[in-house]
Amino acid sequence: MPDLYDVAAIGNAIVDVSAPATDAFLAANALTKGAMMLVDAEQSAALYGKMAAGVEASGGSAANTVAGLASFGGRGAFLGKVANDQLGQVFTHDMRAIGAHFENAPLENGPATAVSMINVTPDAQRTMCTFLGASVQFTDDDVDPGVIEAAKIVYLEGYLFDAEAARRAFAKAAALAHGAGRMIALTLSDSFVVERHRAGLLGFIETQVDLLFANESEVCALFETDDFDAAVEQLRQRVTLAAVTRSEHGSVILTAGERLTVAAEPVEKIVDTTGAGDQYAAGFMFGLARGRPLQLCGKLGSLAAAEVISHYGPRPQVSLKELAASKGY
Amino acid sequence: MPDLYDVAAIGNAIVDVSAPATDAFLAANALTKGAMMLVDAEQSAALYGKMAAGVEASGGSAANTVAGLASFGGRGAFLGKVANDQLGQVFTHDMRAIGAHFENAPLENGPATAVSMINVTPDAQRTMCTFLGASVQFTDDDVDPGVIEAAKIVYLEGYLFDAEAARRAFAKAAALAHGAGRMIALTLSDSFVVERHRAGLLGFIETQVDLLFANESEVCALFETDDFDAAVEQLRQRVTLAAVTRSEHGSVILTAGERLTVAAEPVEKIVDTTGAGDQYAAGFMFGLARGRPLQLCGKLGSLAAAEVISHYGPRPQVSLKELAASKGY
Repeated sequence: MPDLYDVAAIGNAIVDVSAPATDAFLAANALTKGAMMLVDAEQSAALYGKMAAGVEASGGSAANTVAGLASFGGRGAFLGKVANDQLGQVFTHDMRAIGAHFENAPLENGPATAVSMINVTPDAQRTMCTFLGASVQFTDDDVDPGVIEAAKIVYLEGYLFDAEAARRAFAKAAALAHGAGRMIALTLSDSFVVERHRAGLLGFIETQVDLLFANESEVCALFETDDFDAAVEQLRQRVTLAAVTRSEHGSVILTAGERLTVAAEPVEKIVDTTGAGDQYAAGFMFGLARGRPLQLCGKLGSLAAAEVISHYGPRPQVSLKELAASKGY
Repeated sequence: MPDLYDVAAIGNAIVDVSAPATDAFLAANALTKGAMMLVDAEQSAALYGKMAAGVEASGGSAANTVAGLASFGGRGAFLGKVANDQLGQVFTHDMRAIGAHFENAPLENGPATAVSMINVTPDAQRTMCTFLGASVQFTDDDVDPGVIEAAKIVYLEGYLFDAEAARRAFAKAAALAHGAGRMIALTLSDSFVVERHRAGLLGFIETQVDLLFANESEVCALFETDDFDAAVEQLRQRVTLAAVTRSEHGSVILTAGERLTVAAEPVEKIVDTTGAGDQYAAGFMFGLARGRPLQLCGKLGSLAAAEVISHYGPRPQVSLKELAASKGY
């Protein structure tokens, strides 16, 4: 197959509703700051009713990564499920408008397009309550072999481990990708996801994953330890390549023989940390797909993460291609 | 009736879709920079398909004004029509989340909630294509006497002059307001609206309007002249009170005996001019409803306009109450 895409990503197709919130609001609604909590349709409506006036924009972790990749000038494809409703149309429009391939048919007669309610506190932390709706109706039938086999890297969003049908879709995608000599990347997404599916994730990582993305708390949750260095060493023994992000401390890149550290890109004012990990993965995979050295892949990741946390919203607002060029990356 | 509201506004209930655009995009799609053009459902879908990835947020001129009023600490009510769909729910949520009264029943089995596609060019100008959808199904049945009679100022959005049923609603609102000793304010909204309904608007202004808002091009269109001073003099003879905005040149406040000039509030960087006039009206009417001198009403308008053009989106992102306090207004 020709290299049609740098990255094909499978993830939850979600529209974000972002609104300012106070710590007191989080406490009153029993929300854990910085985490992602799943809510059902009723809880979703109740929480939305209490939230401040917000802004809607396409989100979804892996979809944000595809948007970042496109901003670097990369060629992306997205696989995911929206409903045939207004927010599904918004998500679809935005994905195509950035030049990404997105052709999964919308769900008919099922739940609505997924919505993530993001309460952003003055410390720039985002606390997410997600109604997964149509997004978890993604099945292995939605995994288009023509897309998977034509992508240098197939990127899987850990959040989808919550849905059994999606886990089957991951298995299908991994088999197709490896059959075509492609690389499988996975992001752990969230420490609660890791806690819910620790054994399944470890098994999948050991047998299928060539490149793992995680942050500190996720990698610690995966190996049930508070010792970051111990967790990282365990991870290094299990995957060919990993990138672990550490917020303001940058990231650590692990290979069989190496442990590289990459500094964080300085940010004048952190406004909203939504999408930092997604954009790091975008920069890293863009570099990797284009054959750049690992250290530079990490720097591209840091650069994209720094851009996205300097404003509201989970997708870049400037051309990351031009930003990288201005830095000489 | 008690003074339940500082302002009750009747306007188009619209959700904005804002996206970056180039001058070439405007030219290729025959869009006049800075203007508002009406599109039907088909044209709307076609244009949306060509637009860049965007951000959705509640908009609508008079609704933005109510949001500004609420940010000053004012008590607002909004009357308008959404459909019973996802974007209608977003609009309704946002209006109630800012503390405004909004109780018009959504339209069933009709067109979708109105959407305004706003293409923002690098010079911060916004060019709007609006699909009016459900919003123009607003009729005199939707004019709640209990709301109109309890508002110090009843504010009417000129855009609604495009819909015959809404013009009847304006007439009903004006009769109710004057019957209760209330003030009727009108904004001309757009020079093309003025050109389409010049005679009707002039008649309504002369017989019903106590306070008129307009910008330079609208007041010139109203009196079919390029001479701003001549237009302003004609206007002064026809209304008790008027405020004419002049972008970076501030505004002019007209009474029977006076012509006051108010400077624009300095802005570090103009990002998006969407909502400038709406926010000026918010500040002005908040001041007026609270019995402040006219010069200060104009300053409050300038302050709110300056805040909204310093960022994307048509509604304030900071507390205008605190901002005004910090200036000693």
